[in-house]
Amino acid sequence: MSSLPVKFIDVCFSPDLIHLYPTGDRTVVVVDILRATSCMVTALAHGVTSIKPVAHLEECLGLKADGHITSGERNGEKVPGFDLGNSPFEYMHEELRGKRIAFTTTNGTQALDKVKDAREVIIGSFLNLKAVANYLRTRENHLLILCAGWKGKVNLEDTLFAGALVHLLADDFTAECDAPSMARHLFEQARPDLHSFLKDASHVKRLNRLHIEKDIAFCLECDCYDVVPVLRDGVLVKR
Amino acid sequence: MSSLPVKFIDVCFSPDLIHLYPTGDRTVVVVDILRATSCMVTALAHGVTSIKPVAHLEECLGLKADGHITSGERNGEKVPGFDLGNSPFEYMHEELRGKRIAFTTTNGTQALDKVKDAREVIIGSFLNLKAVANYLRTRENHLLILCAGWKGKVNLEDTLFAGALVHLLADDFTAECDAPSMARHLFEQARPDLHSFLKDASHVKRLNRLHIEKDIAFCLECDCYDVVPVLRDGVLVKR
Repeated sequence: MSSLPVKFIDVCFSPDLIHLYPTGDRTVVVVDILRATSCMVTALAHGVTSIKPVAHLEECLGLKADGHITSGERNGEKVPGFDLGNSPFEYMHEELRGKRIAFTTTNGTQALDKVKDAREVIIGSFLNLKAVANYLRTRENHLLILCAGWKGKVNLEDTLFAGALVHLLADDFTAECDAPSMARHLFEQARPDLHSFLKDASHVKRLNRLHIEKDIAFCLECDCYDVVPVLRDGVLVKR
Repeated sequence: MSSLPVKFIDVCFSPDLIHLYPTGDRTVVVVDILRATSCMVTALAHGVTSIKPVAHLEECLGLKADGHITSGERNGEKVPGFDLGNSPFEYMHEELRGKRIAFTTTNGTQALDKVKDAREVIIGSFLNLKAVANYLRTRENHLLILCAGWKGKVNLEDTLFAGALVHLLADDFTAECDAPSMARHLFEQARPDLHSFLKDASHVKRLNRLHIEKDIAFCLECDCYDVVPVLRDGVLVKR
């Protein structure tokens, strides 16, 4: 019997630590649970053709002339002049079917920008957790989960997603460092009730001030969509 | 009744994230459980007069001419030509009493170097956990716990110490961000048996290859020493 090659898994808790991780030989899963990657998954699941992640506001607005729907947020709030904000419910509308979106957010699209040279980049959220895990099992690449965090700082919700994915892939990947087991321990503690576990998280509090409890509850639902967004030529599409 | 001013607590999981944290108004607790800060606490508790943390090997060796005992490690191993390595048991000898030490390690002294401009810098380890907590309660400063990690990456043992300190100070400080609660959740999970919880930690495995299980067990003992090392003019002394 030939043994399969070892596939490594690691977790980067913040885009500000990405310089420590090789990405040229990896599939990178970018995660920004509240709410960028949850929106991206929702949009592609509901028939949006493609999403162009853009790091800067001006570049995003500029893509409107090119026929893009512009969407995004800064500090959790919709940007004036943009077509859509950062609530997953905005991405379920029938009229977005077949459209291209240009998307910029405080953390998620910045994180994507930092790993654009990785071997492969995909998008993770609780909404497509199982689809992502199933896809990664079929890949030969090593794996890095990149948490978008909050302006460079770690956050709880992205870490919990990383832990959930490490948990699902425990038989398929070998942890390289302490971060995967830290994330997994936290997820296993939070698992009985993710929503309660997160109630004191700083970004949940920040969003509560914006009265979007419904968004938060939705972003914590697991396996709503059997969709894996992948980055191809700088644009996210359904694989 | 006048209310006391709020004191904030935060945890920086890696020296590579220190740029995100203000330190000018803070007491920073630097922690490198395996084994730099455990050694520093042990040395001062056993009568060493002062410890000069040095980031580079050559600078450390150069201080020998000035009457310093030279000590430290790279990648967990003693440096050739140095007087002492990085086992806490080396710092208990009677002949070190009254001596000055120059100390350099892979992570711990590098972390110290990054916060030398903080309002106050102290040294934490499980060995002096309660002493550190008691001291911090008396201070008016905000608090940052800086985990030395491993070459920029997060590690489990330093995070668990941070969690233990957050746990002890829960009534005295207010968390600013998610990192303190993440560390505290992990500590509360690990608390019944720190040693078992850490057995898969990457640095524990690394050290096991060096056959220093005894060091690890000692570094996880709580409250052996009622000592708080503080940085004064670039040198660690007992306060």
